[in-house]
Amino acid sequence: MSQNYHKLCQRFNRLFQLSHAMTFLGWDQAVMMPAGGNQPRANALAELASLRHELLTASDVGEWLDQAARESLSANEQASLREMHRRWRRSSCLPAELIHAKTLAGAKCEHAWRQQRLDNDWNGFLGNFREVVKLSREEAQLRQAASGGECDTPYDALLDLYCRGDSNQFIGQCFDRLKAELPALVQRIIEHQRSRETIQITGTFDVSQQQVLNNKLAAMLGFDFNTGRLDVSTHPFSTGVRGDQRICTRYRDDEFAQSLLATAHETGHASYESGLPEQWNGLPIGESHNMCIHESQSLLFEKQIFLSKAFNQHFTALMHEKLPQTQIWSSEALWRCYTVVEPGYIRVEADEVTYPMHVILRYEIESALINCEMEAEDIPDAWNDKMQSYLGVDTRGNYKDGCMQDIHWTDGSFGYFPSYTIGALNSVQFFHTIKQQNPDWQDRFARGDIQFVRDWLQQHIWQHGCFMEVQDMIQAATGQKTNPEFFLQHIRNRYLNEQY
Amino acid sequence: MSQNYHKLCQRFNRLFQLSHAMTFLGWDQAVMMPAGGNQPRANALAELASLRHELLTASDVGEWLDQAARESLSANEQASLREMHRRWRRSSCLPAELIHAKTLAGAKCEHAWRQQRLDNDWNGFLGNFREVVKLSREEAQLRQAASGGECDTPYDALLDLYCRGDSNQFIGQCFDRLKAELPALVQRIIEHQRSRETIQITGTFDVSQQQVLNNKLAAMLGFDFNTGRLDVSTHPFSTGVRGDQRICTRYRDDEFAQSLLATAHETGHASYESGLPEQWNGLPIGESHNMCIHESQSLLFEKQIFLSKAFNQHFTALMHEKLPQTQIWSSEALWRCYTVVEPGYIRVEADEVTYPMHVILRYEIESALINCEMEAEDIPDAWNDKMQSYLGVDTRGNYKDGCMQDIHWTDGSFGYFPSYTIGALNSVQFFHTIKQQNPDWQDRFARGDIQFVRDWLQQHIWQHGCFMEVQDMIQAATGQKTNPEFFLQHIRNRYLNEQY
Repeated sequence: MSQNYHKLCQRFNRLFQLSHAMTFLGWDQAVMMPAGGNQPRANALAELASLRHELLTASDVGEWLDQAARESLSANEQASLREMHRRWRRSSCLPAELIHAKTLAGAKCEHAWRQQRLDNDWNGFLGNFREVVKLSREEAQLRQAASGGECDTPYDALLDLYCRGDSNQFIGQCFDRLKAELPALVQRIIEHQRSRETIQITGTFDVSQQQVLNNKLAAMLGFDFNTGRLDVSTHPFSTGVRGDQRICTRYRDDEFAQSLLATAHETGHASYESGLPEQWNGLPIGESHNMCIHESQSLLFEKQIFLSKAFNQHFTALMHEKLPQTQIWSSEALWRCYTVVEPGYIRVEADEVTYPMHVILRYEIESALINCEMEAEDIPDAWNDKMQSYLGVDTRGNYKDGCMQDIHWTDGSFGYFPSYTIGALNSVQFFHTIKQQNPDWQDRFARGDIQFVRDWLQQHIWQHGCFMEVQDMIQAATGQKTNPEFFLQHIRNRYLNEQY
Repeated sequence: MSQNYHKLCQRFNRLFQLSHAMTFLGWDQAVMMPAGGNQPRANALAELASLRHELLTASDVGEWLDQAARESLSANEQASLREMHRRWRRSSCLPAELIHAKTLAGAKCEHAWRQQRLDNDWNGFLGNFREVVKLSREEAQLRQAASGGECDTPYDALLDLYCRGDSNQFIGQCFDRLKAELPALVQRIIEHQRSRETIQITGTFDVSQQQVLNNKLAAMLGFDFNTGRLDVSTHPFSTGVRGDQRICTRYRDDEFAQSLLATAHETGHASYESGLPEQWNGLPIGESHNMCIHESQSLLFEKQIFLSKAFNQHFTALMHEKLPQTQIWSSEALWRCYTVVEPGYIRVEADEVTYPMHVILRYEIESALINCEMEAEDIPDAWNDKMQSYLGVDTRGNYKDGCMQDIHWTDGSFGYFPSYTIGALNSVQFFHTIKQQNPDWQDRFARGDIQFVRDWLQQHIWQHGCFMEVQDMIQAATGQKTNPEFFLQHIRNRYLNEQY
């Protein structure tokens, strides 16, 4: 009956198991591996990536896809086939030489960037970066051509890798709305915050006690240590498979908030992965949705749960116990400290309010770059103009804290940035609906009960995998598509009215 | 010129990278993985094993092997091709159904054995075990048929998997010599040891301090923490690749010797793997030799270096510092404690002197079983007769400490046991040569200097990979093939004469 579809399921299961290997080899590389493992691990990962690519793009897969489309499939299987087809098209539309050339150019540019950034060496960087842009434009054009009309511009075709279903036009509209309101709102919030007292966190905080506290936080947020681990890495991240989620945070001994925020954030990512539909495990349709959804889950756990006054009040009691030095600070004082708004140079250090402007700036530049409306050498001026206009920050001559600060562009990962902010919009919109359906949410948070949030997310997001198109899923969950008004209202409520 | 040989190199490199993945997924499973990872990890490892098997036994590999044999190859390449051919033959000579059936029967038998052993339930075990024996006999017969006359008996064909190059006949001769002398020697040693005072290790020993001590020991034995890690696992083991060796030990807080012996042992395995020829990295010829060589390296580090009086004297000074409670015991007292000889039920707890009799007993039973000269139900009587005769131990009715104690037979790993004792013979023979070439070895050990041992092993064993046949390598290194006289002399010297 559906033998071609079943052959596809077998092949995609094989690909899934190769990805399982790469997932945990990657985790090990970041968390456990001694330095001597670098070269052998890089060789192994490269070979597994080649093998996976070959198995996905082999000619038999194309034939099975064609023939499966004529088989008698259930609605679920048809959706599953649609996702298989997308994975296949995404991988098979580029010539091997371009992939190879871009991988090499990206690795060279990224490697040199690590030093060039420290040296504020824009011209040195530009020498490598031009090639990355050139190859990324080629990639984008080929992806657009293969999209069967789904992508209006080359940049849309790169967005499709991270934000599939949210087009350039749609994202642009959301961002225009934020741009129209946020810069002025930032100024009003700064003005407002001048009138409140804010503590400075100082002291030395025992890292092993911080680890106990972070483990408690993860558990309170629903992280199950029977199906996951919390470890330490240079940069916080989350990875794993159903049944085995690995999250990482990092500790400083002069501060404790960043590790907690990172733990909450990564617990959101891991919770999503843990809640994916078991019956589709191993197939593309059972995977997590685009990064705009993934980031919405992590931001919901970090900004909507952990940073809420009610949860923070509950959590601070535990912190006072585990880190006795913190007893001098009330939960209200800590909350004010966590929610300071301040325009700055660096995206990853930005607060919830100014963060979108960092993203919009990058989005505007990278979309123009990929669509050949801007050249690489024009970036510093554009960066400075936008930073001045959006956040009042001067970056002239300061490349290292300006356009050279991020790793994303160095290896040609154009199209990724928007998901941070669309994710933020989605997270607020989801949480708005949850609050409406649970009027006692603050009482529950104040008791440390967040299970109703997980239940809602499980029902409306996690269990669906990639079954629905992304905006259909958001509409079904919240009654409308991604709408920036919820985010703007949240910013006013939290930062001007200090409501929650 | 040699394009088929080069295709083979590419394919074997791909297999090597899949093995890299399975190696570190296996390490993670034993050391890091949460319980929830069991099923997804088992699925991933099974799929990678299938993929590796398919890539190794694909018809193109057979054709490349045939055609490469007619290409113009260097002597090194010819040896490399020989090892490729062996790997291929070993994997392609069994029908997939038999592999599948044996894997299932073995998994079922091993799983049930974990409880049946605790329950002393021989009849329950026998019900599953008969199927494992039946399928292992089929496997052995097919392997023998495919060996091109290299294997005289079916059992030889299973030995080939772990002891390749050391035939059943050769191993039988070595074991006959040990059988003729060891049982009486054991009695003489017990008699001798009655006359000496032996301490009992009692107390509570801080595990974190033990970890510091074990890290120091590994480093003293040449383990490089830039290219490896030492962790904790339920059972000590060693795994990894060149540049990234992972060794594990286990700690008890009422005792410290076992963790140290395990660390020394696993450092030997890891050192061998680290010293394999870089130029053959990724090819079968560059892999470690059979288990009789691998075990000789671990036993050399454990029994010849760590247990030597001279090294122990040096190490005890460090132990006195890190574990102050041990200061009440002199290095001589500890050495006597470490070298107590006592016949017992359990192989893994046996001392250096009685251990070979445990192995010989298993060898005699499993070879008869696989060659259809004995049936599974006859094992308990044969076991008891041999334990009585070799070690004077009565195991009647005590299956759990008798023939049900080991995991090896439960999944059909017949042919493995002999490598423990042939490895012991080899280790003594290698170390005999090293001592002859370094008359000041005891002075060096007493200073903690063991580098000359590593240098010798690097030159005579490690750098050769699988280039030579195993007994040719031993002959080149020591002037003769594996000869049990060195081991017997070592036992007399250490245990009757207390020389080192």
